[in-house]
Amino acid sequence: MNDNPILVEAWRGASVESAHRGALAVVDADGGVVLALGDTQRPIFPRSAVKVLQALPLVASGAADALQLTDEELALACASHNGEPAHVATAAGMLAKAGVDASVLECGAHWPFREAFQREMAARGETPGALHNNCSGKHAGFVCLACHRAGSTPLFDFAKGYVQASHPVMREVIQALQSVTGWDLSKAPQGIDGCSIPTFGIPLQHLARAFARVGTGVGLGADAARAARRLRQAVAEAPFMVAGTDRFDTRVMQRLGERVFCKVGAEGVYCAALPARGLGVALKIDDGNTARAAEVAMAALIEAFVVLDNAEAGFMRGLSDLTLRNWNGTAVGALCASAALRSAAPPRSA
Amino acid sequence: MNDNPILVEAWRGASVESAHRGALAVVDADGGVVLALGDTQRPIFPRSAVKVLQALPLVASGAADALQLTDEELALACASHNGEPAHVATAAGMLAKAGVDASVLECGAHWPFREAFQREMAARGETPGALHNNCSGKHAGFVCLACHRAGSTPLFDFAKGYVQASHPVMREVIQALQSVTGWDLSKAPQGIDGCSIPTFGIPLQHLARAFARVGTGVGLGADAARAARRLRQAVAEAPFMVAGTDRFDTRVMQRLGERVFCKVGAEGVYCAALPARGLGVALKIDDGNTARAAEVAMAALIEAFVVLDNAEAGFMRGLSDLTLRNWNGTAVGALCASAALRSAAPPRSA
Repeated sequence: MNDNPILVEAWRGASVESAHRGALAVVDADGGVVLALGDTQRPIFPRSAVKVLQALPLVASGAADALQLTDEELALACASHNGEPAHVATAAGMLAKAGVDASVLECGAHWPFREAFQREMAARGETPGALHNNCSGKHAGFVCLACHRAGSTPLFDFAKGYVQASHPVMREVIQALQSVTGWDLSKAPQGIDGCSIPTFGIPLQHLARAFARVGTGVGLGADAARAARRLRQAVAEAPFMVAGTDRFDTRVMQRLGERVFCKVGAEGVYCAALPARGLGVALKIDDGNTARAAEVAMAALIEAFVVLDNAEAGFMRGLSDLTLRNWNGTAVGALCASAALRSAAPPRSA
Repeated sequence: MNDNPILVEAWRGASVESAHRGALAVVDADGGVVLALGDTQRPIFPRSAVKVLQALPLVASGAADALQLTDEELALACASHNGEPAHVATAAGMLAKAGVDASVLECGAHWPFREAFQREMAARGETPGALHNNCSGKHAGFVCLACHRAGSTPLFDFAKGYVQASHPVMREVIQALQSVTGWDLSKAPQGIDGCSIPTFGIPLQHLARAFARVGTGVGLGADAARAARRLRQAVAEAPFMVAGTDRFDTRVMQRLGERVFCKVGAEGVYCAALPARGLGVALKIDDGNTARAAEVAMAALIEAFVVLDNAEAGFMRGLSDLTLRNWNGTAVGALCASAALRSAAPPRSA
């Protein structure tokens, strides 16, 4: 990552106070590179940005149809959610359809990332369980897939250890990830994700192509193409479920609908499918800053590659060029896409 | 900051997942450079890392003695505290000695940064006021200085607008900062800090020299040297006040006492005085990551430049090379000083 350019800058007064380097790729479904900045060949851990790819077997297998999963439930299977009451209830509902409860989950528990939701829970005297984990919908999806594959084995017994790479369910998930990215995961760098499932190092160009495929169906088998379309439509119908109140992914997809499927990942990763343009996007901020850096870079890429009307362009500009305020509400600076990023990917409406 | 080296790495499995670049300077009180990595000449905003420099007039003026400020209160004047009950009560006590209450404060209010303390407050039905602001002790110190300078003007009237660069109190604070850093602030980049006071761009080499001066008294006038010694001793006696539960500065100074005066600042800044070595330290992480990157780099520099026994070296290694665990408590990686930093500043005990 030595020569990656600065993608996002934090200004204070008239000075750049801090800056975020990174790499990004915008690619079509055939792997044609529309834009590449920085090192897009180095494998990076995509973390939660690829949840939609990991959810493909849930739909392609027929499990989602058999359990009559709703748009909300399929969106939650692709989510890094806020742990708000609706997210928790929807994850519990998925498990109920599979005939089990939250004790089957192996993702661990954490307080919601948003401090306001932590405070609300604390004020109600609550503590978090596995259903509050931002990945609980993804895990509930794995359990629904396990339900479809368990045969005559009781689901609790069959699902046990589903986070391990050797488990039949996780093998199916990993195979789907390998197939759609076209990257040999058996030779890839491997790590353990926050929710305990395996994560694999994959180059940004391969991730971007995978999202172009998810957005178009090109290069996918019939079942995977159908699953990708179903999942995209579900998230477009229920964007609250994929993230939640005040979150980038929810706000952007509430506003732009099926024109954008975007998904954040930990440590500064973002992936997106731009179906109308036939493009996929993948980016990684070197320093791992998701909340301010990766979001701003993703917003700038949407401005560059999605056809927006003036109001939509203004909305997106509010996510790529933000005023920073201090505790008194005084404007003290700005957070914005760098000149290098704007020059490589100028806004269409500019 | 284009060529700054990687100082801190976040590993997942056997791969570097994210990395933090930055610059640092270790300098003696005469400005002799012991170590410089990256661009140490570029002005950076030191933010809260220079609170001890901004507190010099409080002591040098005689205000602290006149109001009989305690070690706890002087430590709080140098603090970025957790907003825990003891911090809030101590800030209120300083204002009471000056004869006013929290309504004089112009720092704004925010929830404590540590989520656990937010939850505790929320569970008690509390919301934060200006006393909870991590800078409330610094501001209370400004008000105590104002009390000393107000003459026959009622303090509330005199103090009004003390956060502005043109106010007599802030002029005195800025003059102290300019004097100890030897940097012409009238020509420096200027911004507004989180708590609304001015912040000035100062090169790391000048900041490091200022901390060497604070640690030794060399290069300071008699009043400033006495003030620096008094503030260092106060923080060494009451390290809880400078930060709080589980915080780096509190833990390190509880353990190492007067051998280290270290202070964190927002956006990835750290400064330290190492009096026994006659050295000052200043570092800035390019991407602004304080909590994980700046702390790890500072810990590595303490390992390199402070004489530690084996137990102390082990304690510091626990702050410069940390195991990262996921929500299930599984070890998934490490956060550590980079090879570039270790090679330039090897641990003395290695």
